[in-house]
Amino acid sequence: RKVAFTADKYPHIKRNPNFKEINDEDVSYLASILSQNALIVDNGTNSSDLTPFNVDWMGKYRGKSRVVVRPRSAEEVAKVLKYCGEKRIAVVPQGGNTGLVGGSVPVFDEIVISTNYLNKIRSFDPVAGILVSDAGCVLEVLDNHLAEHGYMMPLDLGAKGSCQVGGNVATNAGGLRFLRYGSLHGSVLGLEVVLPDGTILDNLLTLRKDNTGYDLKQLFIGSEGTLGIITGVSIATPKRPKAVNVAVFGLSSFEDVQKAFLKSKEDLTEILSAFEFWDFAALQLCQLYGTNRSEFPLGQYPFYVLMETSGSNKEHDDEKLAACLESLMDASIVQDGVIAQDISQMNNLWSFREDIPEATHKAGAVYKYDISLPVPVLYKMVEDMRKRLEDSGSFGKDKAITHVIGFGHLGDGNLHLNITAKEYDEDVTKLIEPYVYEWTGKYRGSISAEHGLGLMKANYLGYSKPKPMIELMRMLKKSIDPNGIMNPYKFLPN
Amino acid sequence: RKVAFTADKYPHIKRNPNFKEINDEDVSYLASILSQNALIVDNGTNSSDLTPFNVDWMGKYRGKSRVVVRPRSAEEVAKVLKYCGEKRIAVVPQGGNTGLVGGSVPVFDEIVISTNYLNKIRSFDPVAGILVSDAGCVLEVLDNHLAEHGYMMPLDLGAKGSCQVGGNVATNAGGLRFLRYGSLHGSVLGLEVVLPDGTILDNLLTLRKDNTGYDLKQLFIGSEGTLGIITGVSIATPKRPKAVNVAVFGLSSFEDVQKAFLKSKEDLTEILSAFEFWDFAALQLCQLYGTNRSEFPLGQYPFYVLMETSGSNKEHDDEKLAACLESLMDASIVQDGVIAQDISQMNNLWSFREDIPEATHKAGAVYKYDISLPVPVLYKMVEDMRKRLEDSGSFGKDKAITHVIGFGHLGDGNLHLNITAKEYDEDVTKLIEPYVYEWTGKYRGSISAEHGLGLMKANYLGYSKPKPMIELMRMLKKSIDPNGIMNPYKFLPN
Repeated sequence: RKVAFTADKYPHIKRNPNFKEINDEDVSYLASILSQNALIVDNGTNSSDLTPFNVDWMGKYRGKSRVVVRPRSAEEVAKVLKYCGEKRIAVVPQGGNTGLVGGSVPVFDEIVISTNYLNKIRSFDPVAGILVSDAGCVLEVLDNHLAEHGYMMPLDLGAKGSCQVGGNVATNAGGLRFLRYGSLHGSVLGLEVVLPDGTILDNLLTLRKDNTGYDLKQLFIGSEGTLGIITGVSIATPKRPKAVNVAVFGLSSFEDVQKAFLKSKEDLTEILSAFEFWDFAALQLCQLYGTNRSEFPLGQYPFYVLMETSGSNKEHDDEKLAACLESLMDASIVQDGVIAQDISQMNNLWSFREDIPEATHKAGAVYKYDISLPVPVLYKMVEDMRKRLEDSGSFGKDKAITHVIGFGHLGDGNLHLNITAKEYDEDVTKLIEPYVYEWTGKYRGSISAEHGLGLMKANYLGYSKPKPMIELMRMLKKSIDPNGIMNPYKFLPN
Repeated sequence: RKVAFTADKYPHIKRNPNFKEINDEDVSYLASILSQNALIVDNGTNSSDLTPFNVDWMGKYRGKSRVVVRPRSAEEVAKVLKYCGEKRIAVVPQGGNTGLVGGSVPVFDEIVISTNYLNKIRSFDPVAGILVSDAGCVLEVLDNHLAEHGYMMPLDLGAKGSCQVGGNVATNAGGLRFLRYGSLHGSVLGLEVVLPDGTILDNLLTLRKDNTGYDLKQLFIGSEGTLGIITGVSIATPKRPKAVNVAVFGLSSFEDVQKAFLKSKEDLTEILSAFEFWDFAALQLCQLYGTNRSEFPLGQYPFYVLMETSGSNKEHDDEKLAACLESLMDASIVQDGVIAQDISQMNNLWSFREDIPEATHKAGAVYKYDISLPVPVLYKMVEDMRKRLEDSGSFGKDKAITHVIGFGHLGDGNLHLNITAKEYDEDVTKLIEPYVYEWTGKYRGSISAEHGLGLMKANYLGYSKPKPMIELMRMLKKSIDPNGIMNPYKFLPN
């Protein structure tokens, strides 16, 4: 698919004329203060070199940056930001560029500051379980490193092979381990951040507890590169479980999904580590487009649940899980189920769940909504949307909209509503938005549970946050980034 | 003990002349906008009515407030703050007044805004485990309420019978369950906060995940009443464990304490819920002044550890704990140990640990230091301090300084260093401070792990935070509280 320029697709977004257009002199200066090969500059013949930095991985957004900067230290980041701050050159911090809301690619000619070369593990303390690393370390690399010491990262997500820990923190990534290990607001212990004026905030503490002053690092967690660039992360990591079990069930109603969740919290309390769900439409989509070609082990049910336990004693965990399943079956909460017998079966079961996002991309253009809702109304959103789209006449075989599926992290109240269409189309968008946000606002949900706001949802913030909060956000942004050079056009409503 | 006025004890702190002295007209106005009995005003004959609001529970700080305001709703708090903001009347937010650093009592004539009457539980969702309550609800009351639903508060501390959840959040309280359930930065889901200009920030979401904008509530967690007054709290609560085990050991070195911690993380991973330690000097102090009159079950060892497990299956937990203890004994890491056989033994063992803070108060005037340190050097701090005080000639039987003890939450790297003296004395203070803070700074520790800064440590912030961070803190304070009326003279260095 050819990706249209964001600037053309969203003509109402105007380039801020206060930002300087970067010229040869600026490029020469930046080259002179940075280590070798730090810059990629579009010279008219090599623009494809910049494409991976200008286009998001969904192929939905495309910027026009002519310069990518890849610093090798916090000090280099500081030099770049100091210069850009003085010259009013707008910047986009970019990690693994795996975001889903257009937050990590430029809109116009903002320069890209990539953390790709900030990729050193700084330290790991195996007694306290505290890891300190550069922001550009890839999540999976860190997790593998920790595995050697019997620990693991407190978060895991589909993009783990490409996403970077700095981006995870900047977007407050959630993912598959959230239910058990909680939010990054709890597990991040310290950050090194470069502010828009080039100041390095050294808050890379390796302490579990610290009540000295405002907890500034919290401001940067989830700020999506609009307040500064995270260059280092200190994070508390849990022990890697010695025993993991995975089971998948078929259920006949969303009511039963909720009952199964309650019961598993009751019976598996401290070992429950994931409670994921998907609907039949999601399964169908995967059977068409998924990469897992093995047969799905259960028959047709309206809902499926994947439950994972993680603990330190396999025998104990097996016993708890078996007892829980038995009572779920006895109470007819679950219709059918399968428990993985070994690690390859475990991975296979997980892959049915992890296949879903990938499959939606192969199905065409995908509209992704990532919503927090009170669990009782969580699936009603999918049903209401499906009905709305059916009523519009645009949804169905050979129509503009091909699939409407619901899946996600039920244990966290987090629904992923994905709608696939033949192509990204203004009419389709209008059918979905702002309806999806209004619906969420009505039930006091969050229009972004974990994906963030980026460009996609900046203007919809008001559906989840009242005006005084947005005003306070603007005030903070203005205080820390007075010239607005950090990741402009995004995050806060225009 | 007669408590000296803070203003007399610390003559270098000057009243800010920009603050208006509250007069009869102000009092009448406040009375007219609030519900009945909201005010307690010193009329010259009833000053003892104000004493509990002017004096902290350690008897170390004493303010001169003549007016206490007890609003009954966020709206009433907003009215008060709006008026105080306009008139530049300084205020001190006060919850249960159980703080240890002089943060919750006035220094001069600041009016006290007490949350005592904000004491309603607003809602509890037993599926999601999310509690919403007024800020003035007492921690233990909330915990008892949750017990009825099979849940519990994610934090527990000695002051639970008096401290209020709003104060817990405002001071980012840690406590005994931190090791297992983590920081309030992770478990608080939403806050209702009244800003210094009377704006009510309604962020009382009941969602586990929400990535819409800067996570403003985080700023108020641990801000000690310097940015606004928390009036409502939404918090994620864990399932109450069905099985709890407690064991206490004697160990012959701090090396062994660390080894025991590592081993118990290894063996008890998901059920380990507390790992507390104390030294022999702490035990001796409790035997002199503690309220637990029962015999301590172990002989004399340099260190004691209390280990707690919490889980959903008693049989499994017993088995894990027994195996862990056996290997600890076999490896001679632990010299002797006792496991509670029933709940009364469990409470009894806990009380040896919980007695310590209380006993220090009965021993005389107590200097409390609450320090985060990398675990390997954690106890060296106590040894070095003891040596310093011995060398000074002021420490020993019948001398000014009577006891130097170390205890705390080893699993969180949190040492409580307590020093008892015959009375609070400038010479004693000078022997201890700033040495204790310099020592902490040298090892990149935190001078306040969980107690906060308050009045006591405001000027020592620089030992734990670099200058650019303190500057950013000042900028935030200035932006949100431009007149500085919120809890002045505290938190940030003067």
